[in-house]
Amino acid sequence: MRKIGLQEIEEIALGAALLGAGGGGDPYVGKLVALGAVRECGAVSLIDPEEVPDDALIMPIAMMGAPTVLCEKGIGDMEYRRIYDMVRRYFGREVYATMPMEAGGVNSMLPIAAAARLGLPMVDCDGMGRAFPELQMVTFTIGGVSATPMALTDEKGNSVIFETITNQWTEELARAVTMSCGGSVTVSLYVMDGKTLKQYGVRGIVSRSQELGRAIRSVKSAADETPEARFLRLSGGIRLFRGKISDVLRTTDGKFNHGRVQLRGIGEYRNSCAEIVFQNENLCCRVDGRILATAPDLICLVDAETFTPVTTDALKYGKRVLAVGLKCDPLWRTQAGLALVGPRYFGIDADYIPLEERAKGGEANV
Amino acid sequence: MRKIGLQEIEEIALGAALLGAGGGGDPYVGKLVALGAVRECGAVSLIDPEEVPDDALIMPIAMMGAPTVLCEKGIGDMEYRRIYDMVRRYFGREVYATMPMEAGGVNSMLPIAAAARLGLPMVDCDGMGRAFPELQMVTFTIGGVSATPMALTDEKGNSVIFETITNQWTEELARAVTMSCGGSVTVSLYVMDGKTLKQYGVRGIVSRSQELGRAIRSVKSAADETPEARFLRLSGGIRLFRGKISDVLRTTDGKFNHGRVQLRGIGEYRNSCAEIVFQNENLCCRVDGRILATAPDLICLVDAETFTPVTTDALKYGKRVLAVGLKCDPLWRTQAGLALVGPRYFGIDADYIPLEERAKGGEANV
Repeated sequence: MRKIGLQEIEEIALGAALLGAGGGGDPYVGKLVALGAVRECGAVSLIDPEEVPDDALIMPIAMMGAPTVLCEKGIGDMEYRRIYDMVRRYFGREVYATMPMEAGGVNSMLPIAAAARLGLPMVDCDGMGRAFPELQMVTFTIGGVSATPMALTDEKGNSVIFETITNQWTEELARAVTMSCGGSVTVSLYVMDGKTLKQYGVRGIVSRSQELGRAIRSVKSAADETPEARFLRLSGGIRLFRGKISDVLRTTDGKFNHGRVQLRGIGEYRNSCAEIVFQNENLCCRVDGRILATAPDLICLVDAETFTPVTTDALKYGKRVLAVGLKCDPLWRTQAGLALVGPRYFGIDADYIPLEERAKGGEANV
Repeated sequence: MRKIGLQEIEEIALGAALLGAGGGGDPYVGKLVALGAVRECGAVSLIDPEEVPDDALIMPIAMMGAPTVLCEKGIGDMEYRRIYDMVRRYFGREVYATMPMEAGGVNSMLPIAAAARLGLPMVDCDGMGRAFPELQMVTFTIGGVSATPMALTDEKGNSVIFETITNQWTEELARAVTMSCGGSVTVSLYVMDGKTLKQYGVRGIVSRSQELGRAIRSVKSAADETPEARFLRLSGGIRLFRGKISDVLRTTDGKFNHGRVQLRGIGEYRNSCAEIVFQNENLCCRVDGRILATAPDLICLVDAETFTPVTTDALKYGKRVLAVGLKCDPLWRTQAGLALVGPRYFGIDADYIPLEERAKGGEANV
């Protein structure tokens, strides 16, 4: 157990933006919500999954909907209290702790706010190890864990409990209610016991997020290596490309942001170009037509100078970025994992080959 | 207490079609569901509201969505069992009885099926005394009763419990889930105690429905009066017009059927024409431009020969119909009632004047 205070929140938010892999929503607003809650109610206890009793009830917290809407609607303290009461009432027992379901993006921050306001510890664990666009895309689905009973509430005070036959149906019904509630709601889903958490959770992801944040902050202070080398070493990332944004295409189908960004190489990449396709998160990175990485591995764009993460929302013509690949959790690389979040699920006509193997095959070595 | 068997179901269904005032869905499919349940599980006990203890829990049953979808999807017995379990679990106590929330149309029949399958009595009471298109349009809303906790389930096994800040929000959120579930679901809403039921329910409406059904069946056997005079006497209806359908216009906004039907007069009405505007249910009847009836009074079209009700779905060029007005429940004529279901709510630019007063003013007397 250790404490998550203001400093830790800043670091986790920065790392979470990287783990968002372009999506997940910029943690900025979430960070303000978490900072506000911790200032008001005190630091949060971060506990290891091993500290959670097998039969303890864990209530993950997330926002569902468009992070941009969250910025406008805001989020209060009543939402967490309501969700907490709904979960307690439904299960007829006390909640032991909360946790993030999605460590990438804005959802890394809201469980901190909930933990602070409810006086609960937060478990160092999530269900993605990154960000994904749909509700069933969690490691717990691989383990056959149901997303429901799922509790949902909006800032007005409406609340809904779902029980569905599959996690895809949860996505379908909860998405419809989220849209009707104005595009952003607070939810608890995959409520589970400690045993399940230990079995299928992505462990240590909050700490990993914080380390990534620290790494980004520290790159400039390196004396014995280039900032880029230091960033890649500390993050465990594989460099995919370095270039200048030459084109961005964005479309939306009402539910997700789709698009692609094109890069013209700089430095040693000056004779190459790259294209990254995204659906909320970056899905596929091609350099000179050759695929170097696909989901579920993380394809992250960071500012070529500061190494701060660049979300798909912030892509702008002329910006210089480094494209970096991070390995996804091993559970995503199983057959069941790839059925959920493999490239083909997202409409990319390619088999999944692990990032590090694709890198070996060509010029994309670190 | 009396028993509702196969014969009673036939009569109630016929009367419910009339109380549907053009909408509510043809009770035909609902009748098959009710007949099947009673054949399988035995007759249902119909009890008077006075027989219900003040603290007893009453679970109304209805379908939400498009009755035409119900015809295609059907309805099983698991839906009622699931709803029952959800309500029992939520309230932590036994359910005493079920009841219809909408006596007009298909929703008159489904509580009979639920009562038979669950072995519960059904209360002779509803929340409309007719049919209405939106969930908050019940006499219980006037009494400040919340539609929620509302339980919803579909034929696949998905289920949802809503708790909302207003009954309009219940409509909004439950409607979204209904659409996502394929357009028709089974619900229980306005779960209430016996005291509330007695205070705000439309009492005796199932029996009234059955009497109307019997009246329609018996009109031809009259010796001492014309079938029409007998029908009007037994139903308590006010004749608005008699004519041949000369035009039907239908539109839909995805949620409701909107439209109007034009009639060319026959018999003593041969020099007149009439227009009836509807949104699922008939809303306003004009004869030669003068309004003779508006919601919440019931505007019913019946076959000019057989007096069987004609729903807006069944309007066809050339059909001869009698337009009849039936008085709505007195609660709808209060200020609060008219705010919910008065003509202006439905976009009709006219004050509500009771049917019988409008009739006095012109040629539209019985």
